[in-house]
Amino acid sequence: MSSTYGEMIRLTIFGQSHSPAIGMTLEGIPAGSSIDMEKLERFLARRAPGRNAWSTPRAEADRPEFVAGLLGNVTCGVPLTAIIRNTDTRSGDYEELKKKPRPGHADLTAQYKYHGFQDHAGGGHFSGRMTAPLCIAGGICRQLLEKEGVKIMARIAVIGDVEDESAFLTSVEENEFPVVSPEKGILMQQRIEQAREEGDSIGGIIECVVTGLPVGLGDPMFHGMENRIAQAVFAIPAVKGLEFGAGFAAARMRGSEHNDPFRIRDGKIVTETNHAGGILGGITDGMPICFRAAVKPTPSIAKSQQSVDLEAMKETSLEIRGRHDPCIVPRAVPCMEAAAALAVYDAFLAYKAQQ
Amino acid sequence: MSSTYGEMIRLTIFGQSHSPAIGMTLEGIPAGSSIDMEKLERFLARRAPGRNAWSTPRAEADRPEFVAGLLGNVTCGVPLTAIIRNTDTRSGDYEELKKKPRPGHADLTAQYKYHGFQDHAGGGHFSGRMTAPLCIAGGICRQLLEKEGVKIMARIAVIGDVEDESAFLTSVEENEFPVVSPEKGILMQQRIEQAREEGDSIGGIIECVVTGLPVGLGDPMFHGMENRIAQAVFAIPAVKGLEFGAGFAAARMRGSEHNDPFRIRDGKIVTETNHAGGILGGITDGMPICFRAAVKPTPSIAKSQQSVDLEAMKETSLEIRGRHDPCIVPRAVPCMEAAAALAVYDAFLAYKAQQ
Amino acid sequence: MSSTYGEMIRLTIFGQSHSPAIGMTLEGIPAGSSIDMEKLERFLARRAPGRNAWSTPRAEADRPEFVAGLLGNVTCGVPLTAIIRNTDTRSGDYEELKKKPRPGHADLTAQYKYHGFQDHAGGGHFSGRMTAPLCIAGGICRQLLEKEGVKIMARIAVIGDVEDESAFLTSVEENEFPVVSPEKGILMQQRIEQAREEGDSIGGIIECVVTGLPVGLGDPMFHGMENRIAQAVFAIPAVKGLEFGAGFAAARMRGSEHNDPFRIRDGKIVTETNHAGGILGGITDGMPICFRAAVKPTPSIAKSQQSVDLEAMKETSLEIRGRHDPCIVPRAVPCMEAAAALAVYDAFLAYKAQQ
Amino acid sequence: MSSTYGEMIRLTIFGQSHSPAIGMTLEGIPAGSSIDMEKLERFLARRAPGRNAWSTPRAEADRPEFVAGLLGNVTCGVPLTAIIRNTDTRSGDYEELKKKPRPGHADLTAQYKYHGFQDHAGGGHFSGRMTAPLCIAGGICRQLLEKEGVKIMARIAVIGDVEDESAFLTSVEENEFPVVSPEKGILMQQRIEQAREEGDSIGGIIECVVTGLPVGLGDPMFHGMENRIAQAVFAIPAVKGLEFGAGFAAARMRGSEHNDPFRIRDGKIVTETNHAGGILGGITDGMPICFRAAVKPTPSIAKSQQSVDLEAMKETSLEIRGRHDPCIVPRAVPCMEAAAALAVYDAFLAYKAQQ
Repeated sequence: MSSTYGEMIRLTIFGQSHSPAIGMTLEGIPAGSSIDMEKLERFLARRAPGRNAWSTPRAEADRPEFVAGLLGNVTCGVPLTAIIRNTDTRSGDYEELKKKPRPGHADLTAQYKYHGFQDHAGGGHFSGRMTAPLCIAGGICRQLLEKEGVKIMARIAVIGDVEDESAFLTSVEENEFPVVSPEKGILMQQRIEQAREEGDSIGGIIECVVTGLPVGLGDPMFHGMENRIAQAVFAIPAVKGLEFGAGFAAARMRGSEHNDPFRIRDGKIVTETNHAGGILGGITDGMPICFRAAVKPTPSIAKSQQSVDLEAMKETSLEIRGRHDPCIVPRAVPCMEAAAALAVYDAFLAYKAQQ
Repeated sequence: MSSTYGEMIRLTIFGQSHSPAIGMTLEGIPAGSSIDMEKLERFLARRAPGRNAWSTPRAEADRPEFVAGLLGNVTCGVPLTAIIRNTDTRSGDYEELKKKPRPGHADLTAQYKYHGFQDHAGGGHFSGRMTAPLCIAGGICRQLLEKEGVKIMARIAVIGDVEDESAFLTSVEENEFPVVSPEKGILMQQRIEQAREEGDSIGGIIECVVTGLPVGLGDPMFHGMENRIAQAVFAIPAVKGLEFGAGFAAARMRGSEHNDPFRIRDGKIVTETNHAGGILGGITDGMPICFRAAVKPTPSIAKSQQSVDLEAMKETSLEIRGRHDPCIVPRAVPCMEAAAALAVYDAFLAYKAQQ
Repeated sequence: MSSTYGEMIRLTIFGQSHSPAIGMTLEGIPAGSSIDMEKLERFLARRAPGRNAWSTPRAEADRPEFVAGLLGNVTCGVPLTAIIRNTDTRSGDYEELKKKPRPGHADLTAQYKYHGFQDHAGGGHFSGRMTAPLCIAGGICRQLLEKEGVKIMARIAVIGDVEDESAFLTSVEENEFPVVSPEKGILMQQRIEQAREEGDSIGGIIECVVTGLPVGLGDPMFHGMENRIAQAVFAIPAVKGLEFGAGFAAARMRGSEHNDPFRIRDGKIVTETNHAGGILGGITDGMPICFRAAVKPTPSIAKSQQSVDLEAMKETSLEIRGRHDPCIVPRAVPCMEAAAALAVYDAFLAYKAQQ
Repeated sequence: MSSTYGEMIRLTIFGQSHSPAIGMTLEGIPAGSSIDMEKLERFLARRAPGRNAWSTPRAEADRPEFVAGLLGNVTCGVPLTAIIRNTDTRSGDYEELKKKPRPGHADLTAQYKYHGFQDHAGGGHFSGRMTAPLCIAGGICRQLLEKEGVKIMARIAVIGDVEDESAFLTSVEENEFPVVSPEKGILMQQRIEQAREEGDSIGGIIECVVTGLPVGLGDPMFHGMENRIAQAVFAIPAVKGLEFGAGFAAARMRGSEHNDPFRIRDGKIVTETNHAGGILGGITDGMPICFRAAVKPTPSIAKSQQSVDLEAMKETSLEIRGRHDPCIVPRAVPCMEAAAALAVYDAFLAYKAQQ
């Protein structure tokens, strides 16, 4: 099933950009888990649109209403469902797009897949807006993991040609622009601003680390931590690449350089380096999980583009109106944490079941 | 479940490096599908060990015995099971490794996960040998796809600092060393040989393309083609990174550059470029699926390494004996095709079900 | 996952008797399926409470709001979600039951399972009210099947010692009391009325038939039609038994009597009798699927009963106030159709995928 | 997937009556679980053919070879696979049946489902022989449960018109004919013998109890203990009915009679009666799970029957040769225990994960 994730937990995401509501059902959260709603709302606010210069002016409260699964703020063991009403919808903006698919978007492929019955308004189920329910679910998993000493933190690593400084093991979520180096952050924002002024958009890379994990999470083969995280992370619309630890750089390395030597520190086995990104054979080794995801430039741009007229079956140009982020990367940072949290919490529950 | 893959098909892989047998069960293949056994054996031969200078001298026939699901060579609709007997096993080689985990291997994490009950001989279920049943299943899917006009072809794109030439849309499977440029192939083999002479190993990148696909394969969110392929590809032991289309390069691109303009050619909608790697919103757009996977250098090297003695809980050095590939990349090429074939065939059956 | 059903479709049911809302998400319905909302509401009305003498006076509109997955009344291919607001809730009625579990209910077992965190009000997720979302999903599947010529019809076969007449292959859904024989219906209603007057309740048997099915639906072993229907039907709270075709009567039969002889009628293979209930080896043979389900008497009765005080851990008596059906069987009739429709439609989509 | 069962465990059964081998893969058994092979073989011997007067003379050793997942007799955490070679196969016996389907068998429905590509020899994947791998998996789960104090015991409750005595809470597995009352057992055997002499067969009912279960196993709705057991039990070829506790008798009961009053005994909550069969709301209440399954008479009988000639599409008579049980019930007794063990052990692992 397409919009469903997990083994010990099961997340189902529903809704379209302009349907009455969007939302999610999350099963498998242990009864008696307390949800800090204020913390969850702060987390959701990090991806919410309309907050600053580099995001779409569409403003939605995006406050989830929990309609099932809670007594007060405590889970009662059965499916947890939250919905967000879609209030600020302007379907009219998208009418033209029904017959002129936007390059880089799912307009055309949704048309193929659903034989013309797709909800095209605002991208329908393919809209970046569907990351809101992802963040509800992931935000819950993230705070439950935090109680177990597991922290999940992401930052912007790259925007265009600007790279953040490399050390990254503490949270930058308090920063409005989530980078380690304020100077690099300013440069990145300049790149975004420049893209916007030119009616264009720009891509980037997000880095995510997970610390405090027990050893032994994950499974061999198709359910290793890499597989699990990949299945979650590629659900974020613009992600086109993913690497763990040394990742693609490993291609140029020797084994003697890439292998992380084992050491003993304070009676525990650690590795001197972390080229493996905390995962060996799909299973956590106790070092931080570390991954990087490539985010493509927002496909919706103001500049005129080449499209096709599906009715006339001829080439045509397209100018996209409506409200769009010149760079989706900053708002994708909490989405990355949410995706990681889902994958890690699911594996964590499986791990606890085996103790 | 860890060793299980698929929705419309379901693959289960079983076995350990030194168990009586390894094998696979594949459910969901339509009744009446004819399997070309000779073709399958040629496919398996491409990953088999002991064939040439750059692979381990462990020689196994690796001829699968189909014990269920066939009448002659035709599927009868029920689970298809094949086993390969493990004959050339030398468990003694691995005795020391029970207490001294190999850096870069799953020895330590398996010990954590299975509380000391893991089968450590030869890496157990984490052995690269488990890609043989993966290739049986993937090889079958690949030939069934071929009958539908879908081709899956991989090549070595990078070994160390040597990059193959870029154009890649035709099969190089007949080449003993699967690259486009023979010159670059020779350079790559030199890098591998050099690593071996130094008791070391080397990594690389594999590129895979899928051509002839219908439009409309894949699902939104967690079951997009990227998610599906990622879940399969990260099952190959040494893979640490994966990118589709422009992938990580997209981070530096503008939307106007990255968006693939739609064109009409011969009455069909195509894109001028293929930065999307044939996938928009998780769904195929009719252009070739194109992905690249980073393969880390073989962790088993002859050079002395830093490990720990798990009994004494002190640091120690480790010298790995036994037979190992100085570079796993060439043998991983068919594995990549197999993983892609599983993912694509599974999505293909779902697609056919929706027509 | 507990509240999830299906393979080609996936139903997730959420909510508690007194949570803000109850509802369901149904994935896998083909894009372009038109839902007749009026028909669906008529179907839901058949299980709605408060309609007549033999059901609880709790009155709820029970009109589902579809918040996702539709464009107008047509599915757009993505998850379909409907919610029903809980408006007429009186949690106070149930306060005492938190410490005094009701015999025959899930109060005690929910307490065990959820370690005291369960939502006990109105039975929480275990309430018969959760059959409303089951009927939304099943009602949709049922009308989609009807377009394919497949009809699903249930009736009351037994209440207490009164048995309906045996022939049953046409719908009785228009009857307020769904039986074939009006005389037997009156007798059954008398039994129910009598039970109510005595502060008691009464059980019964529901029979369900599915006609117009293609041959070849279902799978061997764990996913035969019996298995599929059983998994759905036992989700209806009070069901304690299920039999197909001759069912338990087969125990007393000889093979020569039980085996349904094959015949040819109008060029098609039929069976002379239908002791198999339309299913051989888990797969439909073209005869009507026929099953009967035993429904226990409503556990909530006015009579004083033996319970325990969980705080004091001593025996105590319990008198249940609140609103309860003296016989759940009439309202369970559409639930049985809904459960059957889910199972059959799921198998039907799998069948279509194999053509 | 048809031949796959379970959530925390996953069983896959493969093979056909006359394929090179049959077998099973069982995932999810915790690493370090010790399997008593002698005990398992004794368990398998209870369903093996050819042992006595009332079963088919086909003699197979049916000794499973474990090819993966074990170190010695201890699970190493990865998939556990066992195969049984098919040695005593006589495909010739079945040639005629390819065009003349046997009434009461899956011959015709398999033909429909697999479009003529099915393996018809010996019933293929639909053969009662496929309960051998079911018993391997179930036998393992059963002995692992026994270590946790959980016992699973079945007996013959009814053959034809003969009913065993009703009290049943201790094992009768040592009895060659598994009933409580030796007198009733003799009568039952007479009924079977009589059926055989007449070239006919006879059905029966099997009762199964599970004792020593913790409270709180199972889930609401689609994954209650009834649903789980039903999905497993209906995988046994001849089962056509299933009831829990009072089952169908509940239809005639009043709530005041059916509700099991809570009592306190030795500081624990018990119920005075067990009409619920140990399950309330799908969840165990600590009383024994108790269920009864109706087994139809063996469809293969010597008597001439009405079939159809599929090639000529005309009615014809059929005389079945080959070796068949006049009553499958005795050999189905351990199968019932195996099916129950799978369902209970799966729920047990989920339960342990929640503690």
